[in-house]
Amino acid sequence: MTHKIAILGASGYTGAELVRLIAGHPNMDIVALSGERKAGMSMAEVFPHLRHMDLPTLCKIEDIDFSGVDLCFCALPHKTSQEVIRALPKTLKIVDLSADFRLRDPAAYKKWYGNDHAALEQQDEAVYGLTEFYRDEIKGARLVAGTGCNAATGQFALRPLITAGVIDLEDIILDMKCAVSGAGRSLKENLLHAELSEGYNAYSIGGTHRHLGEFDQEFSLLAGKPVKVQFTPHLMPANRGILATVYVKGEAQAIYEALSKAYADEPFVEVLPFGTAPSSHDVRGSNFVHIGVTGDRIEGRAIVICTLDNLTKGSSGQALQNANLMLGEDETAGLMMAPLFP
Amino acid sequence: MTHKIAILGASGYTGAELVRLIAGHPNMDIVALSGERKAGMSMAEVFPHLRHMDLPTLCKIEDIDFSGVDLCFCALPHKTSQEVIRALPKTLKIVDLSADFRLRDPAAYKKWYGNDHAALEQQDEAVYGLTEFYRDEIKGARLVAGTGCNAATGQFALRPLITAGVIDLEDIILDMKCAVSGAGRSLKENLLHAELSEGYNAYSIGGTHRHLGEFDQEFSLLAGKPVKVQFTPHLMPANRGILATVYVKGEAQAIYEALSKAYADEPFVEVLPFGTAPSSHDVRGSNFVHIGVTGDRIEGRAIVICTLDNLTKGSSGQALQNANLMLGEDETAGLMMAPLFP
Amino acid sequence: MTHKIAILGASGYTGAELVRLIAGHPNMDIVALSGERKAGMSMAEVFPHLRHMDLPTLCKIEDIDFSGVDLCFCALPHKTSQEVIRALPKTLKIVDLSADFRLRDPAAYKKWYGNDHAALEQQDEAVYGLTEFYRDEIKGARLVAGTGCNAATGQFALRPLITAGVIDLEDIILDMKCAVSGAGRSLKENLLHAELSEGYNAYSIGGTHRHLGEFDQEFSLLAGKPVKVQFTPHLMPANRGILATVYVKGEAQAIYEALSKAYADEPFVEVLPFGTAPSSHDVRGSNFVHIGVTGDRIEGRAIVICTLDNLTKGSSGQALQNANLMLGEDETAGLMMAPLFP
Amino acid sequence: MTHKIAILGASGYTGAELVRLIAGHPNMDIVALSGERKAGMSMAEVFPHLRHMDLPTLCKIEDIDFSGVDLCFCALPHKTSQEVIRALPKTLKIVDLSADFRLRDPAAYKKWYGNDHAALEQQDEAVYGLTEFYRDEIKGARLVAGTGCNAATGQFALRPLITAGVIDLEDIILDMKCAVSGAGRSLKENLLHAELSEGYNAYSIGGTHRHLGEFDQEFSLLAGKPVKVQFTPHLMPANRGILATVYVKGEAQAIYEALSKAYADEPFVEVLPFGTAPSSHDVRGSNFVHIGVTGDRIEGRAIVICTLDNLTKGSSGQALQNANLMLGEDETAGLMMAPLFP
Repeated sequence: MTHKIAILGASGYTGAELVRLIAGHPNMDIVALSGERKAGMSMAEVFPHLRHMDLPTLCKIEDIDFSGVDLCFCALPHKTSQEVIRALPKTLKIVDLSADFRLRDPAAYKKWYGNDHAALEQQDEAVYGLTEFYRDEIKGARLVAGTGCNAATGQFALRPLITAGVIDLEDIILDMKCAVSGAGRSLKENLLHAELSEGYNAYSIGGTHRHLGEFDQEFSLLAGKPVKVQFTPHLMPANRGILATVYVKGEAQAIYEALSKAYADEPFVEVLPFGTAPSSHDVRGSNFVHIGVTGDRIEGRAIVICTLDNLTKGSSGQALQNANLMLGEDETAGLMMAPLFP
Repeated sequence: MTHKIAILGASGYTGAELVRLIAGHPNMDIVALSGERKAGMSMAEVFPHLRHMDLPTLCKIEDIDFSGVDLCFCALPHKTSQEVIRALPKTLKIVDLSADFRLRDPAAYKKWYGNDHAALEQQDEAVYGLTEFYRDEIKGARLVAGTGCNAATGQFALRPLITAGVIDLEDIILDMKCAVSGAGRSLKENLLHAELSEGYNAYSIGGTHRHLGEFDQEFSLLAGKPVKVQFTPHLMPANRGILATVYVKGEAQAIYEALSKAYADEPFVEVLPFGTAPSSHDVRGSNFVHIGVTGDRIEGRAIVICTLDNLTKGSSGQALQNANLMLGEDETAGLMMAPLFP
Repeated sequence: MTHKIAILGASGYTGAELVRLIAGHPNMDIVALSGERKAGMSMAEVFPHLRHMDLPTLCKIEDIDFSGVDLCFCALPHKTSQEVIRALPKTLKIVDLSADFRLRDPAAYKKWYGNDHAALEQQDEAVYGLTEFYRDEIKGARLVAGTGCNAATGQFALRPLITAGVIDLEDIILDMKCAVSGAGRSLKENLLHAELSEGYNAYSIGGTHRHLGEFDQEFSLLAGKPVKVQFTPHLMPANRGILATVYVKGEAQAIYEALSKAYADEPFVEVLPFGTAPSSHDVRGSNFVHIGVTGDRIEGRAIVICTLDNLTKGSSGQALQNANLMLGEDETAGLMMAPLFP
Repeated sequence: MTHKIAILGASGYTGAELVRLIAGHPNMDIVALSGERKAGMSMAEVFPHLRHMDLPTLCKIEDIDFSGVDLCFCALPHKTSQEVIRALPKTLKIVDLSADFRLRDPAAYKKWYGNDHAALEQQDEAVYGLTEFYRDEIKGARLVAGTGCNAATGQFALRPLITAGVIDLEDIILDMKCAVSGAGRSLKENLLHAELSEGYNAYSIGGTHRHLGEFDQEFSLLAGKPVKVQFTPHLMPANRGILATVYVKGEAQAIYEALSKAYADEPFVEVLPFGTAPSSHDVRGSNFVHIGVTGDRIEGRAIVICTLDNLTKGSSGQALQNANLMLGEDETAGLMMAPLFP
């Protein structure tokens, strides 16, 4: 059976990535694509790399007949997303890629995003979309909130360690290296090639990045008490890839075992041999996560490095993985393509 | 039915690209991978991006039992390839990715490559592997010679124009922009990131690049008389992609129609709307070819721009497309993945 | 004696490049910097790489007292520039980096830029700023019009050949590879890192690029009859550098000699040994031009390759070179820094 | 008075950078350039970007007459450097850019570099070359040991904090992002453009990088007791630049003040406004260091970010700065050029 799929916000990078992935899915058919400012244009005009595909013309959301849609991906900006989703049919399965339904506590949402939440009912029913840890809830969910790409990367490194109790929760530092597509197709000076190529810098320093809201929520829930991590993102001269270098206190071997055990049966998470440093090159364009663990020369400290492709596993790939679960498909359908290297 | 596949020279970029593509093929199973200097190593060590796959350990060619192999890809350096293929079972289906069997005339081979050909018998039986133009011969071939990546790009732009007689054969200029992976995984100073990034230069200038041998052979055959083109390759600060800017004399509209007609039913070749400039970004990681035609402000002149991914359509993708034909598979099997953008 | 310098449009790349170069000039002092939208900001905020310098705060043009200014660089957008310059003191020495005063014929200006020229009097007095060929006129000029960066590159390759009569004027093709900073600090989708990095494409194809106006004007003037060249620019994934591959008909050796002779005494133009391909890497950040000549395998054809840094020799470096002449300084003052490699 | 300069190892990146910088020095004249494997070649052949300069041909070290040399820069590989320097005239002023004379304790040298030191006498007399902190010793030194580029970056961030006693010495983490030219012009697979571009990874993880020897020596000396830091370098897809993100425990404001005070009069070290993140883009090609301080959301923690150009301030620029002191020149001579941006 082929599922009928709509993608709202198809003119952005995560929208285009969804189209790319669904093109390789055996049982999905894209029936509607929205793009407010580009309504009326073909996808071939907006994304010439998709020219070979037979795709619906971009339209406005209001022009979509959702009665023929089985599942809708929302790749809209946050704040817009909550307004749109509130108005969608209440029975429509939705995977949201924005930040709008990630935080369960409306106060936390307001703290990190600045506005009151406009769709509290939907927020209440939303399931957090980190598939490997919310698989059962996602299977039965109507609305799944895709995670932040940085938030996903950090959680893959840390969740099993918190659960296993093998690290000091008071002293966790995430030094994150983020590719530029994470900022979307937005016209900002610091995203220009001339500004970014051949250099790098930290941003949102001092604990101000919004993905901290997810870390706080998830790690505290796991630990059963408040956990606050340090998190400093850096903008890299590269288009895809997040690499988190995570500094923790704990026995490296125990950490390695906790991760190996946690991910032993996961199709998308690879724990590398002890002492190996993963590279963002090796996951590009794929849904895979690579994790490496090394002990530091200072006794009782370890470095956990985790990398994934922000547009795939960090966003659209994760979304498809969740959609597969929601639709009763094989979780890996359309997602087993190998990374692109070089 | 699943075909048993061997890849010789799996530790280079075209070898790895074959593995990536075959991973998405419904009816192929890799049973042997050779890599002389890296024999004994796992593919995960040599190419960590393939870590998730269950692949044979790299071995020496002599250790492969070819009786259980249906088709063998040879991704070896030229000259080595002819020696290896000469010694392989005479009934084994082979797709060679080297330069060794592209030129039909042994004298032309010696002129461009410098050495006497060591496998004249196999050279004689080899079919030139530009699928779209040798489809029938390839279906029945035992040994197919993959084309040069530059040679493929230029031929996609020019063959239909020569056939249709719409351009002046005396005045064809190919200005080629080539990504660095075309040079393979070889340790050369000019391939270092520090030497290449952020700049560009021509190389093999003045009509000395070996792919001219293929242009001369194929264009002269098509035209029924000697045709010599000008061809200047340039090394680009990018990993994948060839873009040929082809300057011809002829009516742009007639040129456009000749190309549109020639490729109307081709699954992998897209002729863009008249006046559109294709971009190498839009074919990266895929088996697609994008072609654009524009008339110049000078009457009677046109610019044909053609782009493809050198490792995919220019090499390993083409090889798989040919293997599909040789094995009776759907020609597009394993090859319809969308390009990776951004 | 120290000359007092103003720079209008200092918040763009050519403005910042002027500041960088003047920082190394022994006899120039920057007394005013304008930036309309960023007036009130320090240069350290707008361009942190200039933080160590003691520079005037950005102001509006109307706030500059030009009575204390010896020479003014205008790095404003075209059309704005003509309006601003029309209103500046009639005795102020000006080097304009925009396109506004490059074309002597108002009809040609209108043809390529679309609007009527608003400062015909100044246009009439302006001297074309290709220093090596207009040196004497520039020395006595009040207003010098900096050339287009592509226009400069092509002219360095071709002017001596037209003068020497060693090439066929009917068949000149310039295939240009242009770095992204040539487009300025403007917020356009195709200039984003995610869109540009790792790929390349032609633009303004078919003879529509505005720098053709300069080629037509200058080459026709030199030849004493109309000369029309073919010119196709390509956008490169790099920040600095233009490389022109010029296809001509003529004897390569005669071409080489014409270029060698023309530039024998030029401090900034290097003609490489015959058969050598110059690289944009080797002029980055400098005022040097590298030119190479090679004969093609086809008798009577040659390839001339010319490269320079679009922001330096193609724009701000050229401007400073001209200012040196206008102010009676050594032409090379502040301009002899070596290129940055790697 | 013009000083006569020799550069040993001029065919590597730090050698070429020395030539670039000395080209802008008012009182230095290069009289000899060595390059063992490239002896007999001109610098224009080895580094075409230096083509415009009038430079000595590369020779073997044994062919240099050191009696006419005032100061010799050694840009040789470590281990080779100690053997060469041991044999040079005992009165010759030398700035060594290798690792050979950085560590004062022969046992520490052996621990980090594996071999017994072959020039203990010279090691004993060598002065550590971090100019800002060893200025007086360098003025009187005969042999100065240039620092590691990572070691310099980390020390600029941390030395004033250790001296001022404002951070916890037990808990210092340096997450370092290093451009590829730090690895030199060596032919290694991971330095190829195709392997490095568009991705990043940690290396020498777990406290195994040799620059830790310098950190241990210098920080322990400063603190008067053993100090061990955590240090994880990452390879960036960029040619120049090191950026250290340093995680410390202490009051951010006190940290900021300690740094501001320490560098108030330094010509090359810029402490940015509190809360500002420096970027490696803003120091490229220059001798400047940018440092930023931010308090974390977690009370009592701060992030210090320090960036410099590894080839300039991290190596050849530092070397010239030291040479200036040794020769009685103005410390900043030849070094005040602005960074190259974009």
